[in-house]
Amino acid sequence: MSHATTYNIAVVGATGAVGQKMLETLEDRNFPINELKLLSSSRSAGKKVMFKGTEYTVEEATPESFEKVDIALFSAGGSVSQKLAPEAVKRGALVIDNTSAYRMDENVPLVVPEVNEDDIKNHKGIIANPNCSTIQMVAALEPIKQHFGMNRIIVSTYQAVSGAGNEAAEELREQSQSFLNGGDLEASILPVKGDEKHYPIAFNALPQIDKFQENGYTFEEMKMINETKKIMHTPALHISATCVRLPLFTSHAESVYVEVEKNDVTVQQLKDLIGKAPGVVLEDDPATQVYPTPLSSAGKRDVFVGRIRKDLDHENGFHLWVVSDNLLKGAAWNSVQIAERVVANQWL
Amino acid sequence: MSHATTYNIAVVGATGAVGQKMLETLEDRNFPINELKLLSSSRSAGKKVMFKGTEYTVEEATPESFEKVDIALFSAGGSVSQKLAPEAVKRGALVIDNTSAYRMDENVPLVVPEVNEDDIKNHKGIIANPNCSTIQMVAALEPIKQHFGMNRIIVSTYQAVSGAGNEAAEELREQSQSFLNGGDLEASILPVKGDEKHYPIAFNALPQIDKFQENGYTFEEMKMINETKKIMHTPALHISATCVRLPLFTSHAESVYVEVEKNDVTVQQLKDLIGKAPGVVLEDDPATQVYPTPLSSAGKRDVFVGRIRKDLDHENGFHLWVVSDNLLKGAAWNSVQIAERVVANQWL
Repeated sequence: MSHATTYNIAVVGATGAVGQKMLETLEDRNFPINELKLLSSSRSAGKKVMFKGTEYTVEEATPESFEKVDIALFSAGGSVSQKLAPEAVKRGALVIDNTSAYRMDENVPLVVPEVNEDDIKNHKGIIANPNCSTIQMVAALEPIKQHFGMNRIIVSTYQAVSGAGNEAAEELREQSQSFLNGGDLEASILPVKGDEKHYPIAFNALPQIDKFQENGYTFEEMKMINETKKIMHTPALHISATCVRLPLFTSHAESVYVEVEKNDVTVQQLKDLIGKAPGVVLEDDPATQVYPTPLSSAGKRDVFVGRIRKDLDHENGFHLWVVSDNLLKGAAWNSVQIAERVVANQWL
Repeated sequence: MSHATTYNIAVVGATGAVGQKMLETLEDRNFPINELKLLSSSRSAGKKVMFKGTEYTVEEATPESFEKVDIALFSAGGSVSQKLAPEAVKRGALVIDNTSAYRMDENVPLVVPEVNEDDIKNHKGIIANPNCSTIQMVAALEPIKQHFGMNRIIVSTYQAVSGAGNEAAEELREQSQSFLNGGDLEASILPVKGDEKHYPIAFNALPQIDKFQENGYTFEEMKMINETKKIMHTPALHISATCVRLPLFTSHAESVYVEVEKNDVTVQQLKDLIGKAPGVVLEDDPATQVYPTPLSSAGKRDVFVGRIRKDLDHENGFHLWVVSDNLLKGAAWNSVQIAERVVANQWL
């Protein structure tokens, strides 16, 4: 680092949906940047991007791009991270990787600062940013787990298209307009770019996010299951997920069922905990129709929780509705937040 | 009835979203009609409606409207049913009521023909048609319950706006167009017409369908919980629901978790059962991305099931994705189907 308190930052995938939000977040948070390097695949190299009133030219990411970089924020797909993150580390950079490439690597901390900030200390050059739908759920559930224990989660998700990138958002926009005009719905991106079949997302619901695995679950569902156990340090947690892509541009919502270990826990106790949890906002008053929605949470960094209620049959069971901007807390903000914790604690 | 095999039919709420589908379904099924009477509130009286190439004028429903009617299909709101269904019964009509007015009345059978057709026999003039989201779930789960027992259901729904009527569908259409044009989203119907607050549904998800109850659940959620127990004859069933309104025009989807009583049940056994169940179609092949969606099921009378898989932690737990046209099996078709069973069995 060039001075005591500023850092050379690289953003890999600077023109993507998450990369754009990373730049906005670095700017909003006034992150102490010395030099900023915007990197991408050769396809997007040469594009111009504004940051704090200055125009930057995006360069093609190569191993040499990471010379003198202190922190590299990766969000350009798993294959780019697999190829270039080790090169960045070799050159002394700390990598905060937003892809799934290293998340389950036992040598790589998988971090949601509100949950397991201390895991950052164990990094060996790479810190992984969890999957968007995982992050908001564990941020909401961690205070409950800490106070009352937790042995079971069943989650069904309501996920926005921006999680599949700018092309997917454009597909939703074009299909929606075509549908309203009485036209056909042409699908070439969703549910999964590169998978065999594509289905319309406009005014539809697709129960597939990422590719199917051998066990009949999608990779997105297995990410939620495996990442939650790793982040919360609960390998024995019973957890299952059903992940659904919906015609929303921004913010994922989740219908979450949890069973706590302690008996006689009340809804009010959960509301009190959620209300004072870091990074989490309680929006829960059925009497006045107060609950979070994707539109009400878009553009905000917090995780919003409402509809907290007890299961009618299971004394230790509770239902929650968890909503957050998938590009912010689900991706860009959580990555920048990790970088903030790294520099605040001198864990570089 | 005028001749041995045709019936005088009244449709109450003939201009509504469900009423229109009732007429289409009576026509598609070539229901044996002698005289058809189209009724509505005074607001819609005088409107012209086509049926089998003939124009009918909608009349205001009054107690006298039901003279000589054999079967009256009600779908004009709970207050209309409460006022006029007893008048229809008094005049000798059998009422099939699509509102929530009589569903939990112990003297009124609540019927999904694939599940509890025989309950029709106990009617005292009124048969209730269950809530849309309940119908498709119990149709899919009944064969599983019969063969393997069932002691627990946790469901999260993905529900279309047409369940809230034509005005709600129009609101989604107008908001969607406004959003795509960069305009504001004005909400005056959803989530619940007549409730205090209204929120935009376009590109959003609203975790409220019908009004909130004292216990923090919505009435829609309580309908799913209570109606399922009544239809399946399982008062001790553990069941909870989270109901969410989405920017879909037609068809509800449901992420359903069930626990069966029998041990060692396999996914293949469930697929075999679902595949041969009446009124239910298996669409389930992850390897070729086959699963039902709202758009693929719209306009069809069946219930479609996919994504059947075992819970990874609970030996007796399974997850399913259940989709059906909320205006057909969820309302109009189930009502007409009850009428068909009534006349086939001479249970009038």
